Amino acid sequence: MDYVRRQQGIEERLSEKRLKALLIVHPPNVRYLTGFTGSAGALLLFAGGKRKPVFFTDGRYREQAAKEVARARVVVGKQAVLAEAAAYVARQKIGAVAVEAEHLSVADHVRLRQMAKGVRIQSAGGIVEAARMIKDEQELALLQAAVALGDRLLDVALKAIRPGVREIEVAAELEYAARKAGAEGMSFETIVAAGERSALPHGQASAARIPTKGFVVLDFGVILSGYCSDMTRTVHVGRCSSSARHMYKAVWRAQEAAVAKVNDGAACGDVDFAARSLLKSERLDGYFTHSTGHGVGLEIHEPPRIARNQKEPLRAGMAITVEPGVYIPRQGGVRIEDMVVVTAAGHRVLTSAPKELMEL
Amino acid sequence: MDYVRRQQGIEERLSEKRLKALLIVHPPNVRYLTGFTGSAGALLLFAGGKRKPVFFTDGRYREQAAKEVARARVVVGKQAVLAEAAAYVARQKIGAVAVEAEHLSVADHVRLRQMAKGVRIQSAGGIVEAARMIKDEQELALLQAAVALGDRLLDVALKAIRPGVREIEVAAELEYAARKAGAEGMSFETIVAAGERSALPHGQASAARIPTKGFVVLDFGVILSGYCSDMTRTVHVGRCSSSARHMYKAVWRAQEAAVAKVNDGAACGDVDFAARSLLKSERLDGYFTHSTGHGVGLEIHEPPRIARNQKEPLRAGMAITVEPGVYIPRQGGVRIEDMVVVTAAGHRVLTSAPKELMEL
Repeated sequence: MDYVRRQQGIEERLSEKRLKALLIVHPPNVRYLTGFTGSAGALLLFAGGKRKPVFFTDGRYREQAAKEVARARVVVGKQAVLAEAAAYVARQKIGAVAVEAEHLSVADHVRLRQMAKGVRIQSAGGIVEAARMIKDEQELALLQAAVALGDRLLDVALKAIRPGVREIEVAAELEYAARKAGAEGMSFETIVAAGERSALPHGQASAARIPTKGFVVLDFGVILSGYCSDMTRTVHVGRCSSSARHMYKAVWRAQEAAVAKVNDGAACGDVDFAARSLLKSERLDGYFTHSTGHGVGLEIHEPPRIARNQKEPLRAGMAITVEPGVYIPRQGGVRIEDMVVVTAAGHRVLTSAPKELMEL
Repeated sequence: MDYVRRQQGIEERLSEKRLKALLIVHPPNVRYLTGFTGSAGALLLFAGGKRKPVFFTDGRYREQAAKEVARARVVVGKQAVLAEAAAYVARQKIGAVAVEAEHLSVADHVRLRQMAKGVRIQSAGGIVEAARMIKDEQELALLQAAVALGDRLLDVALKAIRPGVREIEVAAELEYAARKAGAEGMSFETIVAAGERSALPHGQASAARIPTKGFVVLDFGVILSGYCSDMTRTVHVGRCSSSARHMYKAVWRAQEAAVAKVNDGAACGDVDFAARSLLKSERLDGYFTHSTGHGVGLEIHEPPRIARNQKEPLRAGMAITVEPGVYIPRQGGVRIEDMVVVTAAGHRVLTSAPKELMEL
């Protein structure tokens, strides 16, 4: 990864925004800029690269920081990372430092102001996130690898699904195969929601048994080399009723309609609108109770938001999910989700698992 | 769980602190007080119970909130939970609301002030965490069940360890067995650190292969019914050298010395000091680069901190880890960790796995 170029990009943004320095504490942002994968680290960048970046960590990560951190000077402190950074900016008489307003708590903000005597603490929002939205070639390759693993894991889950099996056992098989394949972990708690539970948009795998008839929503992702995948498929156990079939087809068509809107320059809200309109034409939009998607990368949820009225334009290099769903209480639910990359020519769907309705 | 009593406890604390209302947004705190297990929820409590508590969530969690949330009136909003809560307190002319300073970001704080027109936003810290530190009988039973599962999982991991096997494969076997046994997930990324990597205090299971000789640190936990376990054992592959054996014994003795200090009324810092002193007597304290332990419950890390100079007194009902370690760069490391509950009579060690040095 070209950490130097990434750091320089942020340094330029700081100059443009007339900020002297930025203290980065959000772990995925720290990792994006330095390569550091530990939990306790902070990076101090200076506008225009006028000073060498400084990286703060604690004794637990001395070796790891020396090995991983790109470009920055590493300071291994005795105190918590934030206290160490505060002491540094006060000592070096750095007049003003911006913090990540979305990631610093109110309490840490107060502490930082007290500890960094004589330093003006400013707020900045989303500077690193804005850079992270556009994935470079290496990142896209890692995302593709994570998605491809997800595709293979779907087959593992499908083999485990049959009436009487607990949802959590299906998740266990899937996660075991993920780890065996080298995943660092799952991107989020695996959703296996069967029968009536499929009507819960966030039905994490439970001890409930798969019934003899009904939908099973499978929503899961892996973390592979730091990058997250995210996919959803819905299958049906037993023979599908005509109303369930109608519901499935509507969601599938809505998902395809939304994917078709993914283009360089299109507004995020247009993608959401496409899914919602299709469901409206089938009188199912009232059961679509969440937004259509979100960015994915080092985090499972990151900008942009693919939601109603979002004006943010899609740009080449963005990686997003497209995942409309319909949930009818006490009946069941259907969600279909792919990961999609925005390209100069339009888009590329990363997920390759089939979407034809499967009756198991 | 007695959610009503818990909510009433916080309502009393608000009266004592002369706060009118508290908006609780931190998911484990929300769960502790209401039983809600979803990701988007906020609870508004009023001093002295002068008004009925209000719970805010969004459309995804309508059904789940209706089923899970105790006592509070549930408001299912169209906007984000924080915006919904802000609109509510403004509309109801609630003059002042305190927020959780440790959990609200600077950016959300600014947004809340803008959205909740005419409402004074105050900061409060750790009110719910203070209550959560003392576990009730039901919580202790859940913690014991999680720890007991951890003990059984150690055997699974030990069976998987042999030279040439990748660390991540050991983690895969352990996590698979955890899921099969009903765990919702792992408390944190499983650490399997073999050979030189055992010198990394946070050596998450990697693709590295277990060498023919050296320590293997296993540090892992499960989440069972919402409660976390946490344990570490270190084993040796191949015959142990005398210096490695000395290191192991020193850590074991340090761990036992620290556990012996766990008593109702003892300062947290005393437990840390006991471990550090023992290691000092063996000239190994310079390699003990982290604190001795932390509280555990709904979160894997919660108050109190068992660290140098911590004056906080241990009190009956607290559940903590005791986990000293020694890490010698390019040689290896040892850590031994139990979960311990403070009782009126002293303490009870929850973890039951043996600590005798195992040469595999």
